[in-house]
This record gives sequence, structure tokens and C-alpha cells, in this order.
Amino acid sequence: MQEKIKFMKAAIELAKENLKSKNGGPFGALVVKNGKIIGKGINQVVSHNDPTAHAEIIAIREACKYLEDYQLDDCEIYTSCEPCPMCLGAIYWARPKKIYFAASRNDAESAGFDDSHIYREIELPNGKRKIPAEQILEQEAIDVFTNWKKLIDKPEY
Amino acid sequence: MQEKIKFMKAAIELAKENLKSKNGGPFGALVVKNGKIIGKGINQVVSHNDPTAHAEIIAIREACKYLEDYQLDDCEIYTSCEPCPMCLGAIYWARPKKIYFAASRNDAESAGFDDSHIYREIELPNGKRKIPAEQILEQEAIDVFTNWKKLIDKPEY
Repeated sequence: MQEKIKFMKAAIELAKENLKSKNGGPFGALVVKNGKIIGKGINQVVSHNDPTAHAEIIAIREACKYLEDYQLDDCEIYTSCEPCPMCLGAIYWARPKKIYFAASRNDAESAGFDDSHIYREIELPNGKRKIPAEQILEQEAIDVFTNWKKLIDKPEY
Repeated sequence: MQEKIKFMKAAIELAKENLKSKNGGPFGALVVKNGKIIGKGINQVVSHNDPTAHAEIIAIREACKYLEDYQLDDCEIYTSCEPCPMCLGAIYWARPKKIYFAASRNDAESAGFDDSHIYREIELPNGKRKIPAEQILEQEAIDVFTNWKKLIDKPEY
């Protein structure tokens, strides 16, 4: 069996287990480096009262802890469903080399999940979204960035 | 002082403190419910080796823990910078009623952060992004969703 098929089957298996345990939605994810699983995640939104506890987020956090790094250089992410915008954002910050996914955002929508809705909302300008956003005190926050830019030995990421 | 100004100043103050402590980027966020702060976050990406440890994510997780819920009904989020796609996605899953932000994604870009870049990438179709994504075994994952839909008393969110 091709390696990518093997790992995706394992990610889908995690989703199946979560279906039984009812920790949260039926989603599973893995982070793999050099053919070795270094992070595993299942959706724990409901069991942990944590809306950020998606499978990919948990797998990324576990893999980063293992690597003692905040970057997933040369890693692959296997997820049973196309990452939602939150998880895709997390993947971009973690910078793995490739994403493998099984179900699509539309398959997730058909199963009752908001992924597609959130993709549509994120592409809208701030004033047109369902959750309103108001900008205040911009200059005070810019001043913090200005001081950040002057900082020597700052933690870049 | 208007309440929204008071809370935003507090969020920016967290960002300033983080500038000194070098836990991560100069970002701070608060979750407020009925005029009370119920979650606080600073960026801890570098100090915790966690690329998901943005100020908003930490504040949301803390507020949800306090409320013992995975939803932030009737809450407001104050963040020193416009949420990145990861954090905006998390906000959509948490469903607060309003977002207040200070610096913009462009201000963040000027300070060297990838927020705008990730917004541009997320809007692209899968095949056109910098991190490649490949879909495999879709039907096996759809089968899990089909079983999910049949489930009685499932944890909806």
C-alpha cells in the first residue's frame, strides 16, 4: 500500500473512533515526518469545551511539542476532511510541506458543519460579515508594532 | 471612558507586555461578557513552541473554560490586531457577538507578520496555493459522515 494511502486510512480511522466516543465531530488528523507519525488529533470541541480543538490543531500542537519547534519543516499533514479556515490558517503558520485531505468542505457542509460558510465569510470585507468587526485605537496598536520593529533579538516566526 | 476603549486599551497593554517578555509576537486579546473580562490571551508561539498559540485562540479557550461551554454567546472579543484567518476561523466557531480590533492585517504585514499573505492564500483554490493539498480517499471519509448523520444524540456544534 502506498504510504499516503496508509496514513490517510489511519486519519480516517481516528475520525471513525471519534464517531463512537462522541468527543466532538467525526474528524481525525496526523502529522507525519520522514514516514513517522509525530502528532495525532481528533476533534474534541464538545468533550473539552474548546471550539479550537479541531483534529488538525491538536495534531499540529502535538507534533510541535515533539519537535520542540513551532515549525513543521518537511512534515505532511493528513486530515480526514479538508481543513476549515481556522485549521488551514494554523497549517500556514506551522508551514508543513504538504496537506493530504479526504472529504471536502462541501462534504462537511452536507454533514452539517460550518466549514464552507466560514470560508465564504472570511473572503468578505469586515463590514459585510455576519459577526460584525469594529476597528478602534489603530494608532496605539501601530505604535506597539513600531516598537517591535526596533527590537533587537526578537522572536521572529 | 467608553467601555470599548477601556477594554481595547487593556488588550493593547497585553501586547505591550508581550513585547517586553518576548513570548511571541506583540499581540494581546480579551473576551468580555456583560462588561467582565472572562478570557485573556497573549501570543505564546515562540515560548510554547505552538504555532496556534495566538492571543485570540488563548483568550477564547480560557473564556470557554470559564463558561464551561464551547460557544461564546453574547461575548465580545477585543484584539490588538485584526484576527488572522486562523483566529477569525476560531471566532466563527466560537460565535461571539462582536469583534473589536485595533491594528489592521496590513499594519501586521508592515511589522513582518504573515496575516495578509495567509488571507490571500486562503482565497485561492487548493491547487494554486503555496502549500500543496492533495485529495485522496474521499469516499471513505464521506462514509464516516454518512454514519455521523445517522447518529442519534450526537454532539452538534
